[in-house]
Amino acid sequence: MKLAFIGLGKMGSGMARNLLRAGHELTVYNRSREKSEALSGEGARVAASPAEACRNCEAALTMLSDDQAVEEVVGRPDGIASALDGGTHISCSTISTAMARRLAAAHASRGQGFASACVFGRPEAAEAGKLIVMAAGAPALIEHYRPVFDAIGRQTFIAGAEPWQANAAKLCGNFMIAAMLEAFGEAFATLRKAGVDPHTFLDAISALFGSPVYANYGRMIADQQFEPAGFALKLGYKDLRLVLETAQECDAPMPLASVIRDQMLSALAHGQGDQDWSSVARTAARDAAL
Amino acid sequence: MKLAFIGLGKMGSGMARNLLRAGHELTVYNRSREKSEALSGEGARVAASPAEACRNCEAALTMLSDDQAVEEVVGRPDGIASALDGGTHISCSTISTAMARRLAAAHASRGQGFASACVFGRPEAAEAGKLIVMAAGAPALIEHYRPVFDAIGRQTFIAGAEPWQANAAKLCGNFMIAAMLEAFGEAFATLRKAGVDPHTFLDAISALFGSPVYANYGRMIADQQFEPAGFALKLGYKDLRLVLETAQECDAPMPLASVIRDQMLSALAHGQGDQDWSSVARTAARDAAL
Amino acid sequence: MKLAFIGLGKMGSGMARNLLRAGHELTVYNRSREKSEALSGEGARVAASPAEACRNCEAALTMLSDDQAVEEVVGRPDGIASALDGGTHISCSTISTAMARRLAAAHASRGQGFASACVFGRPEAAEAGKLIVMAAGAPALIEHYRPVFDAIGRQTFIAGAEPWQANAAKLCGNFMIAAMLEAFGEAFATLRKAGVDPHTFLDAISALFGSPVYANYGRMIADQQFEPAGFALKLGYKDLRLVLETAQECDAPMPLASVIRDQMLSALAHGQGDQDWSSVARTAARDAAL
Amino acid sequence: MKLAFIGLGKMGSGMARNLLRAGHELTVYNRSREKSEALSGEGARVAASPAEACRNCEAALTMLSDDQAVEEVVGRPDGIASALDGGTHISCSTISTAMARRLAAAHASRGQGFASACVFGRPEAAEAGKLIVMAAGAPALIEHYRPVFDAIGRQTFIAGAEPWQANAAKLCGNFMIAAMLEAFGEAFATLRKAGVDPHTFLDAISALFGSPVYANYGRMIADQQFEPAGFALKLGYKDLRLVLETAQECDAPMPLASVIRDQMLSALAHGQGDQDWSSVARTAARDAAL
Repeated sequence: MKLAFIGLGKMGSGMARNLLRAGHELTVYNRSREKSEALSGEGARVAASPAEACRNCEAALTMLSDDQAVEEVVGRPDGIASALDGGTHISCSTISTAMARRLAAAHASRGQGFASACVFGRPEAAEAGKLIVMAAGAPALIEHYRPVFDAIGRQTFIAGAEPWQANAAKLCGNFMIAAMLEAFGEAFATLRKAGVDPHTFLDAISALFGSPVYANYGRMIADQQFEPAGFALKLGYKDLRLVLETAQECDAPMPLASVIRDQMLSALAHGQGDQDWSSVARTAARDAAL
Repeated sequence: MKLAFIGLGKMGSGMARNLLRAGHELTVYNRSREKSEALSGEGARVAASPAEACRNCEAALTMLSDDQAVEEVVGRPDGIASALDGGTHISCSTISTAMARRLAAAHASRGQGFASACVFGRPEAAEAGKLIVMAAGAPALIEHYRPVFDAIGRQTFIAGAEPWQANAAKLCGNFMIAAMLEAFGEAFATLRKAGVDPHTFLDAISALFGSPVYANYGRMIADQQFEPAGFALKLGYKDLRLVLETAQECDAPMPLASVIRDQMLSALAHGQGDQDWSSVARTAARDAAL
Repeated sequence: MKLAFIGLGKMGSGMARNLLRAGHELTVYNRSREKSEALSGEGARVAASPAEACRNCEAALTMLSDDQAVEEVVGRPDGIASALDGGTHISCSTISTAMARRLAAAHASRGQGFASACVFGRPEAAEAGKLIVMAAGAPALIEHYRPVFDAIGRQTFIAGAEPWQANAAKLCGNFMIAAMLEAFGEAFATLRKAGVDPHTFLDAISALFGSPVYANYGRMIADQQFEPAGFALKLGYKDLRLVLETAQECDAPMPLASVIRDQMLSALAHGQGDQDWSSVARTAARDAAL
Repeated sequence: MKLAFIGLGKMGSGMARNLLRAGHELTVYNRSREKSEALSGEGARVAASPAEACRNCEAALTMLSDDQAVEEVVGRPDGIASALDGGTHISCSTISTAMARRLAAAHASRGQGFASACVFGRPEAAEAGKLIVMAAGAPALIEHYRPVFDAIGRQTFIAGAEPWQANAAKLCGNFMIAAMLEAFGEAFATLRKAGVDPHTFLDAISALFGSPVYANYGRMIADQQFEPAGFALKLGYKDLRLVLETAQECDAPMPLASVIRDQMLSALAHGQGDQDWSSVARTAARDAAL
């Protein structure tokens, strides 16, 4: 397919590369041009604006950091909305459910399609085309773009017929990870004060859960090694805020999420915004006077 | 070795069987005698009291439901304490750190050894000798009884030189599982109200974490199938209470644990004590008016 | 002074009346005209639009239900912003700190003044001119409008030179009341299950705190009499959300506020949005299976 | 009446003095004798042991710091239980509901009466005979000892026919105060970061609630003046633990109480045990990096 890809950060670069590898015709745009150039050697055309990237494409994928970035790239004069011309916008970013609904409405009013295709996984998984894709949108649209999802992920799940449902599921997934991080943080704080070596506990927990996610994040916390950040705490905090907003729209209290949000907010207050989000564990340690 | 084994519930039976298979000489005691008889066909001697089970044994293992049960089996006139006669008590039960310290002191005053060897795993793992053992106690003692731990588990971790440290680690481990249960409960509540099929979310989360623990418990909650209980909510609640007591002894706040305790308490108030502890998820559902 | 007053709800009507009593020249506007007519008998002029109310006035006061209502009344074509013509907008509504900053910026760009003058108190206090006023804005402006504050309140406090600071203080004040409501709810739930008459406890607490606020709200909860609503739960919930947004802007976790927000959200899920906000107590009761 | 009074701390001394003033015949006992001597000048007889104090008395009042102190004074060989000889034990201490039930049973088995008469108020109120008394026990017993309650308090409330019900109500009362302390702590933290003077907010809140309890505690927190302690944080923490134990006995979750307990535990970890319990506010400040 003829596709546009906008947003070539840690995740987006790998995703774009896998679309090229799968044989799609790709025009890319990124705010700082050097990341686009890196992909041009692999066959991507480089555009000077989102609108230029979208010209004559069938669908435009966006992989950006937050609501605001997506809103701007879509709505600006040389943005996606005006240039898509009946095509489809596939949003991969972790954005709010409210924003997903606004985008769906905006595109619908122009006779354009909109789908969410959120992804789980770290940059290495994006590079390897092994992401988990959580998609939602009109069934025919989703079916049509399945080859796109297959190119970037190892498995695709369909959350529903409304694009925002994929965003709800993605946010809940990040909440599941955050709950693990905070639980580790509290357990380690207590055990350190009990004189138990965190690595001993980590090894037992890794054996118990048998999950690489536990092993990897658990080690970062046991080692107290939060830099460089794989996923910045300020972004994790944003996701906790967003999952609570979704919960609010659904009239569903999430008290665990509220606790984690507050622990992350304390971490932000202590200047940890650019550390890995696993550093939320430092709040529990600080509260125990460690 | 010549060993006594006291407490032949869902977990204890499997553990005792694996000690027999490993060639240890075993005398067993259980409050209701029929469970002992089941093991006599496999080579166990059956005792009429804890004291009789301990006669001439090198070490007595206990696998009982709570502090009170252990205290009674140890302290009663025909209990372990008086009959051990210089041997070692190895406590496998999930009991409080305070109780572990009291037991250590009581045995020390009689010149007897005491070690904790807590276990992670469900009854099937106990049966298969695949438990994860979290042990603690005097290093020489731990070293000496390693063959015992190897017989019941697939891996042994040493939490420290004080028996109660293993109990602290075991309680924190159960807290890690409980955090996952509550996180599932909140995510499912929000997603059900968002019209997202819980099984779709579960499949994505299972793929993301790659952990059988997530897959198994997640399915119970997605299916809302909480009976028969693998591990009763009233016991899970007890463990949350105990981990908070340990945290308290260590001056280490565990706000996530507090939330889970409160959610479980609400579940108890609604008569769920004998359901599986994953039914804590019903509190989040109820609070969302599901 | 020549003043405009926009928003004649339960609170606004009393406030407007006291401005008339203090001798100010008042033009009023309300979405449904009948409330304006009620005041015309007491000397108020009735306007057909916010802009018309502002014509030639020195300052326009707004007392509306939320951010959206204020935004609309200010920004619409026949709204305050365009008609104020160098005058001052005094916002009495309980709105977000972010909205207060946006209003300040919008008016500044037109060379108009903006101040916040939030009020504490129930409709009877508004009627009696006994509100507590929490004002903020440029000192000269605040000084100039002190007679206005004195007319509606019994005491005025100055939160700072930035209008949004008054909104922060007002939201924190509502949080203080909400904390009392939730604490009552939890205490009553436990005591009802302990067989202690809620009214006995209420009488002791009223004697202890010596506060009419405790006596009044405590009685509503003890009586389980939540209708008619003095202040609707959906509005109280909005304020908890807003105080958490302010806390977020300040990087200051408020875990108690998070709990109350979640309890209110559960109340909303159970259809209590139009009951008095003291009915948040029903969540604690429900969670105790009462 | 002929009464014994045991425990002459900050509260007990004033209470004993008011019993003397009311004309009762009093024998006092305190662990450190000097406090007893101080009362002997006012007509009290001084005993060398709890048993001696109880000799021939009709009732013995105890005002001690915690469960352990009461248990010891009652159960020791020269304690109350053995010396009361058919009289009544009136427990004024803030102890657990479980301990109150144990005391009731212990006295009943000896044919002795037991009642709880918990008190609200600070040392100055005890000195002035202005405490609030929360009593519970067999109606005839309560009626008979009403003159005793009247001597120490300004108002007496009857929580029920079971002594422990008064303890439940007393613990819930302390929880109400603690909720106010934590709410102040969170509001002040946010407002300090918002640049709002805490004293301005305090004055508005004092005007709003009209309660000396708010004015006094609020000032301590606004001034960050936590020493000397009127009521030590370690005792406040104990009460929060006890109210949560009572809530647990009643299957009634108290999430606000859980948060406050955790905040106090963090304060203990930071060495604040001997500061006033209002210093729980420092946890919120620390978490906001103040």
